[in-house]
Amino acid sequence: MTFAATIVTLYPEMFPGPLGVSLAGRALERGDWSCETVQIRDFATDKHRTVDDTPAGGGAGMVLKPDVLGPAIESVGEGRPILAMTPRGKPITQERIREITEGPGVAILCGRFEGFDERIFEAYPQIEQVSLADIVLSGGEPAALAILDACIRLLPGVMGAPTSGHEESFEDGLLEYPQYTRPQEWEGRTIPEVLRSGDHAKIAAWRKARSEEDTRLRRPDLWDRYSGDRDQPASGARRKD
Amino acid sequence: MTFAATIVTLYPEMFPGPLGVSLAGRALERGDWSCETVQIRDFATDKHRTVDDTPAGGGAGMVLKPDVLGPAIESVGEGRPILAMTPRGKPITQERIREITEGPGVAILCGRFEGFDERIFEAYPQIEQVSLADIVLSGGEPAALAILDACIRLLPGVMGAPTSGHEESFEDGLLEYPQYTRPQEWEGRTIPEVLRSGDHAKIAAWRKARSEEDTRLRRPDLWDRYSGDRDQPASGARRKD
Repeated sequence: MTFAATIVTLYPEMFPGPLGVSLAGRALERGDWSCETVQIRDFATDKHRTVDDTPAGGGAGMVLKPDVLGPAIESVGEGRPILAMTPRGKPITQERIREITEGPGVAILCGRFEGFDERIFEAYPQIEQVSLADIVLSGGEPAALAILDACIRLLPGVMGAPTSGHEESFEDGLLEYPQYTRPQEWEGRTIPEVLRSGDHAKIAAWRKARSEEDTRLRRPDLWDRYSGDRDQPASGARRKD
Repeated sequence: MTFAATIVTLYPEMFPGPLGVSLAGRALERGDWSCETVQIRDFATDKHRTVDDTPAGGGAGMVLKPDVLGPAIESVGEGRPILAMTPRGKPITQERIREITEGPGVAILCGRFEGFDERIFEAYPQIEQVSLADIVLSGGEPAALAILDACIRLLPGVMGAPTSGHEESFEDGLLEYPQYTRPQEWEGRTIPEVLRSGDHAKIAAWRKARSEEDTRLRRPDLWDRYSGDRDQPASGARRKD
């Protein structure tokens, strides 16, 4: 089954872009996913093909006109989640990415300038306002590329080893443990002894301890949630242990 | 002055990619920033040009070899921050983006597979381990594109209106207020009356109230920090009020 991605944008030439290369590019060629774009400007109605206007109440930047974006959204159709990339949105999670990949595809709206007219979200309450990170981008396109990349790697058959999607950061509420590879000694630094022991239980215990330690030190926000869940094992948190 | 970006990657063909278009593309043409890539594979030493190996202790995926990545990092030189994109890193912030843009440039290391050999971060403690979002990407490249985009738009002269970089999400610890533009009435929905009042103080108060309300509802994490800062005005938080 093909995972159908549609990006609603003023810059369709940015897609598939980096997703036409490497893992995602090969998956695109195989038909594991498809990449369609909708040019917002095609829905402009005046002879200048205007897509934006100044913010009501004043201020810098431009806002996408709802009477242009609305019909562009309508053209996407129904049956797939519609995400709007905006710093005002809810932070994207790996859990939501995984849910999306279990469905038929996704549509992503990319704003530019000062973003969307708020009435768009009143008229189309099914749109999920999603934020990639607490940074401000020039538009939603780089965020859409990251979201799509995260989706594509989870599609069946895309990653070489089917287990690569597990035991990684965020999947169990923890950061991933640190990794090492050959050479055994590099610049005077050696791989931790336990990882060469061949003792799978010991290795798993070391990795779990390092995941917990690094999460506690680097991401107190994740750690609080994780240790809170652990105190209440019936909370429904997706954990492997 | 040109902001010098160097991306250390196995996929140099992904750059500038979407950043060769629109605002960032015009800035690249003008020389406001430069985009150099370092191909990690060029530093492989065997005849197969091997860049990765299996994780010590077992597990899926591959880890970038430190004896290959190390020399690639050395080639970047000193004088600029070096970020390594990894889900194990510290979440990127708009504040860090702004700091980076005040310097001469940035180097970004992109991992693929299972990422970096941990010894890289012991050998080069100046490397900042940075996470874009709590999602797992197929590699650091889409994250690097988003980070660079966020940097480029803040460079002097890149955005049309110099004030666009202010009054936006995260700059004052709050989400941005909702935006509206013409038409005044669209699908039976009107722009809030206050935004048409011409009363700048009233508009500013409405926007501040909406920023606070939306942050409280949508981002309790940001809200807690913001309201904590407000209770301690000497805390050094960057706020405009």
